[in-house]
Amino acid sequence: MIRIFKHEGGSTQQVDRVDPAWIKPGSGVSVWVDLDQPTPDEAKVLGDVFHFHELAIEDALSELHHPKIESYGDYLYLILHGIDFQESEHCFSTKDIDFFLGTQFLVTVHPGVSRSIGKVGAFCSRDSRVLGEGPGMLLYRIVDTMVDNYRPEVDKLSETLDELEEEVFERPNTQLARRILNFKKDISSLRQVVLPERDAVGRLARREFPLITEQLAYGFRDVHDHLVRLSDEAMFFQDRITSILDAHLSAVSNQLNQVMKVLTIIATLFMPLTVLTGVYGMNVTLPHLPGGERAQFWWVCGMMFAMSGAMLGFFRKKNWI
Amino acid sequence: MIRIFKHEGGSTQQVDRVDPAWIKPGSGVSVWVDLDQPTPDEAKVLGDVFHFHELAIEDALSELHHPKIESYGDYLYLILHGIDFQESEHCFSTKDIDFFLGTQFLVTVHPGVSRSIGKVGAFCSRDSRVLGEGPGMLLYRIVDTMVDNYRPEVDKLSETLDELEEEVFERPNTQLARRILNFKKDISSLRQVVLPERDAVGRLARREFPLITEQLAYGFRDVHDHLVRLSDEAMFFQDRITSILDAHLSAVSNQLNQVMKVLTIIATLFMPLTVLTGVYGMNVTLPHLPGGERAQFWWVCGMMFAMSGAMLGFFRKKNWI
Amino acid sequence: MIRIFKHEGGSTQQVDRVDPAWIKPGSGVSVWVDLDQPTPDEAKVLGDVFHFHELAIEDALSELHHPKIESYGDYLYLILHGIDFQESEHCFSTKDIDFFLGTQFLVTVHPGVSRSIGKVGAFCSRDSRVLGEGPGMLLYRIVDTMVDNYRPEVDKLSETLDELEEEVFERPNTQLARRILNFKKDISSLRQVVLPERDAVGRLARREFPLITEQLAYGFRDVHDHLVRLSDEAMFFQDRITSILDAHLSAVSNQLNQVMKVLTIIATLFMPLTVLTGVYGMNVTLPHLPGGERAQFWWVCGMMFAMSGAMLGFFRKKNWI
Amino acid sequence: MIRIFKHEGGSTQQVDRVDPAWIKPGSGVSVWVDLDQPTPDEAKVLGDVFHFHELAIEDALSELHHPKIESYGDYLYLILHGIDFQESEHCFSTKDIDFFLGTQFLVTVHPGVSRSIGKVGAFCSRDSRVLGEGPGMLLYRIVDTMVDNYRPEVDKLSETLDELEEEVFERPNTQLARRILNFKKDISSLRQVVLPERDAVGRLARREFPLITEQLAYGFRDVHDHLVRLSDEAMFFQDRITSILDAHLSAVSNQLNQVMKVLTIIATLFMPLTVLTGVYGMNVTLPHLPGGERAQFWWVCGMMFAMSGAMLGFFRKKNWI
Amino acid sequence: MIRIFKHEGGSTQQVDRVDPAWIKPGSGVSVWVDLDQPTPDEAKVLGDVFHFHELAIEDALSELHHPKIESYGDYLYLILHGIDFQESEHCFSTKDIDFFLGTQFLVTVHPGVSRSIGKVGAFCSRDSRVLGEGPGMLLYRIVDTMVDNYRPEVDKLSETLDELEEEVFERPNTQLARRILNFKKDISSLRQVVLPERDAVGRLARREFPLITEQLAYGFRDVHDHLVRLSDEAMFFQDRITSILDAHLSAVSNQLNQVMKVLTIIATLFMPLTVLTGVYGMNVTLPHLPGGERAQFWWVCGMMFAMSGAMLGFFRKKNWI
Repeated sequence: MIRIFKHEGGSTQQVDRVDPAWIKPGSGVSVWVDLDQPTPDEAKVLGDVFHFHELAIEDALSELHHPKIESYGDYLYLILHGIDFQESEHCFSTKDIDFFLGTQFLVTVHPGVSRSIGKVGAFCSRDSRVLGEGPGMLLYRIVDTMVDNYRPEVDKLSETLDELEEEVFERPNTQLARRILNFKKDISSLRQVVLPERDAVGRLARREFPLITEQLAYGFRDVHDHLVRLSDEAMFFQDRITSILDAHLSAVSNQLNQVMKVLTIIATLFMPLTVLTGVYGMNVTLPHLPGGERAQFWWVCGMMFAMSGAMLGFFRKKNWI
Repeated sequence: MIRIFKHEGGSTQQVDRVDPAWIKPGSGVSVWVDLDQPTPDEAKVLGDVFHFHELAIEDALSELHHPKIESYGDYLYLILHGIDFQESEHCFSTKDIDFFLGTQFLVTVHPGVSRSIGKVGAFCSRDSRVLGEGPGMLLYRIVDTMVDNYRPEVDKLSETLDELEEEVFERPNTQLARRILNFKKDISSLRQVVLPERDAVGRLARREFPLITEQLAYGFRDVHDHLVRLSDEAMFFQDRITSILDAHLSAVSNQLNQVMKVLTIIATLFMPLTVLTGVYGMNVTLPHLPGGERAQFWWVCGMMFAMSGAMLGFFRKKNWI
Repeated sequence: MIRIFKHEGGSTQQVDRVDPAWIKPGSGVSVWVDLDQPTPDEAKVLGDVFHFHELAIEDALSELHHPKIESYGDYLYLILHGIDFQESEHCFSTKDIDFFLGTQFLVTVHPGVSRSIGKVGAFCSRDSRVLGEGPGMLLYRIVDTMVDNYRPEVDKLSETLDELEEEVFERPNTQLARRILNFKKDISSLRQVVLPERDAVGRLARREFPLITEQLAYGFRDVHDHLVRLSDEAMFFQDRITSILDAHLSAVSNQLNQVMKVLTIIATLFMPLTVLTGVYGMNVTLPHLPGGERAQFWWVCGMMFAMSGAMLGFFRKKNWI
Repeated sequence: MIRIFKHEGGSTQQVDRVDPAWIKPGSGVSVWVDLDQPTPDEAKVLGDVFHFHELAIEDALSELHHPKIESYGDYLYLILHGIDFQESEHCFSTKDIDFFLGTQFLVTVHPGVSRSIGKVGAFCSRDSRVLGEGPGMLLYRIVDTMVDNYRPEVDKLSETLDELEEEVFERPNTQLARRILNFKKDISSLRQVVLPERDAVGRLARREFPLITEQLAYGFRDVHDHLVRLSDEAMFFQDRITSILDAHLSAVSNQLNQVMKVLTIIATLFMPLTVLTGVYGMNVTLPHLPGGERAQFWWVCGMMFAMSGAMLGFFRKKNWI
Repeated sequence: MIRIFKHEGGSTQQVDRVDPAWIKPGSGVSVWVDLDQPTPDEAKVLGDVFHFHELAIEDALSELHHPKIESYGDYLYLILHGIDFQESEHCFSTKDIDFFLGTQFLVTVHPGVSRSIGKVGAFCSRDSRVLGEGPGMLLYRIVDTMVDNYRPEVDKLSETLDELEEEVFERPNTQLARRILNFKKDISSLRQVVLPERDAVGRLARREFPLITEQLAYGFRDVHDHLVRLSDEAMFFQDRITSILDAHLSAVSNQLNQVMKVLTIIATLFMPLTVLTGVYGMNVTLPHLPGGERAQFWWVCGMMFAMSGAMLGFFRKKNWI
């Protein structure tokens, strides 16, 4: 699907095709071309009208690229990633949006509906001043919306982390290892997306490209700041999840210790008793202890209780019970 | 709450509103505007009088930003973090203070009472020379006080670390894992605060901004030095706590070894005796050992003692008892 | 084997020997010399005709070098590595291809059949325009093909990783450790190849060498981008395989815990019963329980069931069964 | 305590007070003021005579600073650390020495007796040429002596490391974990001291400050080289001690394995025998084996030996004994 | 021992002493002075004839320095390390060779026989052109030979690594931990030698010093390339040996699991049988099972087999046997 917004002389209209004259520097026109899952026919505008470099077009039409920013002389080519965390797959599914920024135009290419583009597009239709601020400002608005979308996902991760931590200490169980490792994978993929994104936006914020005005740079500095914070948080999460995994392993070790203690206590309590009953079951003449025939049994019971009591005292001393 | 200090011609007074004329370079006036949890109305001064960039104002009025420093041409915008360690939450709760520094003014914005601002404010009221040294010097005083507040918190961490270490070696118990991990979280959050703070102050110390005079730079170098030391200590703490966790896991392993040894000793001492009593309990004719009927029992006891003695000798050789 | 392509005045022919006049700057001729496992005789062309530096020639004729790029004034010397993952050896077997790039010529040296060279060679024979674009463009085509060959191998690794992960959690077994470590070795060797390759191509992309035109640089930027993505993926794989190894060790620990629980349950269930039967086997007069001679046996059985039931209740409370 | 050495016209004398005229550039006088735990009165010389910056004076009179170097225009301020390893505290106790270096003077401030200052001071009294070489050369001499003092301490660490390694493999015991962790702490504190020291001296060696002549820079390069080696060794120690800790944990695991094997052997040898004796103790009519009444016992013994023999064969096959 | 080679007018002779005139820039003479474990007398040539800096001379005559390169104006001072791996000590014993390179001279100092010096010296005696290429080329030849000597040692390490890996998986035993750690130590010391060596040679290759001609730089670039490869391989070895240690620990865990399973199987098989025989040994009237007096024994045997069979079925289900 292709949508073209044109701003000229204070009013914004949606038009059908791009006049090559509009995109010449100093034309006084601002154009935004949005290509949503473009058909090969629609995609032709990139080469035929804008004359973008064929490698950039190829990248824009394919998926799953690394966030980056490249200058092709009179226009910039950016790949940035919107986020869409899908917990079921343990992967931040990212939708790459490709931007071509010139003095008079912004071209966006994305492989399906994008929340940020949709939002800014609606805003743009309603308020003709939005596009009037120029294509750079429009780029800033879209990128800012994209990065704002990361926040709720990252907060969700933070909550999951708190839950995992609570569970490791309160209800250790064997399912936790898997969940912890899945969380690590999430963090990893978050960092994989945020770090190059941060670097690309940082280059805009540092005004490496003349297309970015000082005013715009202030905006991108703000977005960059958000991304720095996100990547710091990702690092912090990674530290914490590693600690939680350690805690989990430690909890598993402690459980083993507990089980071993119970086993040892059982064995220690009953083995001497077994020997004692064995002694009294031997076919030899045993020494007659004081008291009659019936008292013998109670003597044995007494010995049993004495032994068990001594053992329990020993365990208490060892702090096992 | 808004407080405005104005210094002109050697005397400092608290005034109600800021005259735009005062903040022009070369006005000869020094102004300090302190906004403590400003109401939207009070916050208007930032835009209407000082004409700060809207993104900077937005950042200043929101919370939880990353320490940073940004130049907006004729004024600097700083976010720094005061510290307030809350042991119950295992998190260095930080209060971000926002600074706008111009040649004639310092504006501070903070979301609630700040110890450092309060201290410097009181000092400023008492001694009119304080503001007379200029807004840069005032900034230095506040930042210096903020960083000094870190010291007692870090010393508290150091004590906790010594305690944990002592406990791991002297009184290993299963609660330690949790405490060690909480400590790690504290260290992590300390580093997350100190590192960007150090870098921001470092930029002031290196005089990247013309607003910072050489005299001021000496001061910020000192603060930077404190922050470098703090971040070094945080690294050192992290190293140590990792070692302590290792020691804890090693202690847990050793406990398991101890328990296993006791179990093995018990089993080894009593199983042969069980077999012996079993042999004498068999319904077969046993070889008659020298001595009468009654001597048989003592023969058995003798064999038992001999066996146990041999076992104990074996354990001593293995260094188990 | 030596193959020489010569392009002059719009047509490409395969020729037998190189005329030194062709390779002078501005000769208007483009030459591609491909040395496939050259005999010492064939290799003489490098020194006698092209006058390359003897150390570069030595490197080109030997194997297993580190990817790198070096400028020798009027020509560049590159070593890059084609990939050929051989799962049986757990090693990305790489074939190093050596390139000498001048304004009028490209010389490629490789120790055996190379897929990328073969492909570009066939293309070059069919379409005379290919060599007409100049030796730099030819270099780009070959390098691009080489890097494209990495993708299926990396995808294969990704699948293996998913399989390993699944198996660790679903069917833990002792063979996994070996497979995980072999996978780590693969990742390691992938990174060892990709990282220097990325840096070498990055230098071409940044136009450090005047031989690389702006047009070419766009192409190499694209290849560099692919290599950055590959090295990012390798990092990500390494993170994940480390987590998987941790999960495997955790699974092994859990198995030990399970086994210990079964042992403890068995011991706990049967040791008291052994003592009870031992008591009733003692040669002492036992207290007569209510009921006749035959009822005694059922009393004992009742005691046994009561004991076992109590034990099982205890285990359920401990969450062991 | 304050000591003042003054060199003028080839002779060095100890004087009582510093004449401000001496310390002016080009005065032809070299002055060394050594403040050993100065009283507040003695410390006044820093501000009143030398007019050092108040922050530098404050740092010099307090303790425990980070090694650093700072230029205050016409003088340098250095903090370096002498070493004094105190094994009982597992901490390299460092004595910070503060230096102020000008063209005509060197001021040293230290909180107690310093071996290096003492040594150079004695040398200075004996040989008037020492101070005649200028204050920079004097600084070099002191720093060189300080760094030379590190060597024996580091060699002591190296020996301890060898001992620990030997013990882990030859006499593993539970006390080792604590000693290994204490050693790690030592290494950590060594690195914490050496690394900033190396960087500070490195800045002198690179002649960042005009006060340092080329001749002096050669000297500081040598000291820097020593410090680089020390920090490399500290890294190497850290690697090794980590490996030793791993080895220790592995040894503990092996011990557990050994204990478990003994337990399993005991259980495996005696449990079948218990069952056998139990069978012959049952109150049922047993099959009569060939031979008379007395032969039955020997049949049982035979069975026992056969069983034990089979078990031992099984263990040998498993490589457990 | 001192050896002096002098090249003048196309012929190389071995002479007894160095004429100070020869070593002046532009003298047309090339001199190589080789000091092999020089006596104090022989060492005097460094100061008296060449006037090297006293700190450089001190370094050259002492041992065990860090590889480095330093410019002293008109001559370079290099320390590089030849390798001599001594497996018995688990340490790459390195022989440091010190070089002083001027326009007309090369001075080498080494504490004992050096393979590379010996080889180049022999070559130099045979072929008078070798020294005729200048002292820089001579330096290159020696350094190249030194670095070539690393290769066989590194290959030996690679083989040991393969052996260790094989053994961990095929024949795990407790001796492996020690061997693995010794190998780690070897790798560590290899890296400690190669990394600074690489950096020092890299500075020669980058032509930081005017003494190095472009031609020489090509040579050093080659040597640098070798050293980069060596340090990469060392990193790769370190990765692998860490994995192997993990595998070893995992194998130890698996062994423990195996032992525990055998123990559990034994206990589970025999404890119920013990209880059963205990029941039939009780002095109570047992229920009479169908069949005569003799059949009772076979009933018991039947029960025993049934129990054991059920247990074995349970184990098979648990995948333990």
